[in-house]
Amino acid sequence: MTLYNEYDRLLVAVDCIIFGFHGDQLKLLLIKRDFEPEKGKWSLMGGFAKKSESLDDAASRILMSLTGLQEVFLEQLYCFNQVDRDPVERTISVTYYSLINIEDHDEELSKQHDASWFDLGEMPDLIFDHNEIVDRAHQRLKYKAEHYPVGFELLPPKFTMPELQSLYEAIFETEMDKRNFIKRIDSLGILVKLNEKKRTTGKKGAFLYQFDEDKYKQQMKTGNKFQIKP
Amino acid sequence: MTLYNEYDRLLVAVDCIIFGFHGDQLKLLLIKRDFEPEKGKWSLMGGFAKKSESLDDAASRILMSLTGLQEVFLEQLYCFNQVDRDPVERTISVTYYSLINIEDHDEELSKQHDASWFDLGEMPDLIFDHNEIVDRAHQRLKYKAEHYPVGFELLPPKFTMPELQSLYEAIFETEMDKRNFIKRIDSLGILVKLNEKKRTTGKKGAFLYQFDEDKYKQQMKTGNKFQIKP
Repeated sequence: MTLYNEYDRLLVAVDCIIFGFHGDQLKLLLIKRDFEPEKGKWSLMGGFAKKSESLDDAASRILMSLTGLQEVFLEQLYCFNQVDRDPVERTISVTYYSLINIEDHDEELSKQHDASWFDLGEMPDLIFDHNEIVDRAHQRLKYKAEHYPVGFELLPPKFTMPELQSLYEAIFETEMDKRNFIKRIDSLGILVKLNEKKRTTGKKGAFLYQFDEDKYKQQMKTGNKFQIKP
Repeated sequence: MTLYNEYDRLLVAVDCIIFGFHGDQLKLLLIKRDFEPEKGKWSLMGGFAKKSESLDDAASRILMSLTGLQEVFLEQLYCFNQVDRDPVERTISVTYYSLINIEDHDEELSKQHDASWFDLGEMPDLIFDHNEIVDRAHQRLKYKAEHYPVGFELLPPKFTMPELQSLYEAIFETEMDKRNFIKRIDSLGILVKLNEKKRTTGKKGAFLYQFDEDKYKQQMKTGNKFQIKP
């Protein structure tokens, strides 16, 4: 095709924003860049797209190579496209964000190379436009968590109500009223209360809950709307 | 950079989904593709990215070349990335959607090449994955129109309340209760009622309104939230 041949081909990066939640903090998995430019600086985990692979598959592959995880929440975020964003060569970055349950996957994650979890509130200075990418990912997560039950991806399968509340407080960056929060969660009808408590030091312990996918689908069918406002 | 050199370069298309509103219908501007493959089929307006130009700028350029319009609402939608979406060569498509006031720009638009407005409910069979792209753009528009005052981009500066309601009905694909709609719009406090009516055949005419950007900003500052639910 002559017409096709007239045009430029571009380097396409696929970068992953990997969110976790631990100890009341929303966290991000970063790696130390091991090649120039900006070698030694913290960076999102990324790679370059191949002709033979969809970008969705590339994102899964990159996530798998860093975390050992498959079948976790992964969604395209945005294509960052400023001409000079990479000083070596014009590169566009198609970004994907992922939500990971740290607690269950601690072993897989800790095995991996030069990677560390950072509190979202204490991001180091990242390479290129990666700080901007993180900001946009956090905005998207706020929206998603308000309208869809994606928050549970960040928790272990069994969690207490205070844990669930502190997750939402971390995502929304705001304190929430405990009574209203519990009332709201109850009205959604998507959790199962277990006959089991989580013991914590010096407390009676709190009941454990599970998110129930079937209940959620059932509720949405009957017109109930998932929404947890900040 | 050795490392950079190891990777593939890809053809990057920029495709624009151009929405308009006329006669109670949400519309889309399409062009007849004038080269192979799929020559003669309807298509979104698009072009290929250049090394020297950001994709945002490319989208503006493409929109300008088709419609003659600048400084209209234009926002990135999604990067479509399946390996075989273009049969000629692996091409990813970064898509942008635009909202245009047809009425004010009818002259610019009608001058242009093989382009036509189609009702969103009566889309022809488009090239490649463009029907899927249109669906995703419509989903995004629904969300945006619910939470941001972007609907006004599709109307002339002066409009009647029935026109505003039929715009939202077209976007949401649902009928809305007239009284509740007017009540909701009033409570937002973002319109100015003009001392001027639009005459329509056989009717007394309806008062004209204008959207007031400053009022909107003021309202958002005081904690009022823009939301128009379907």
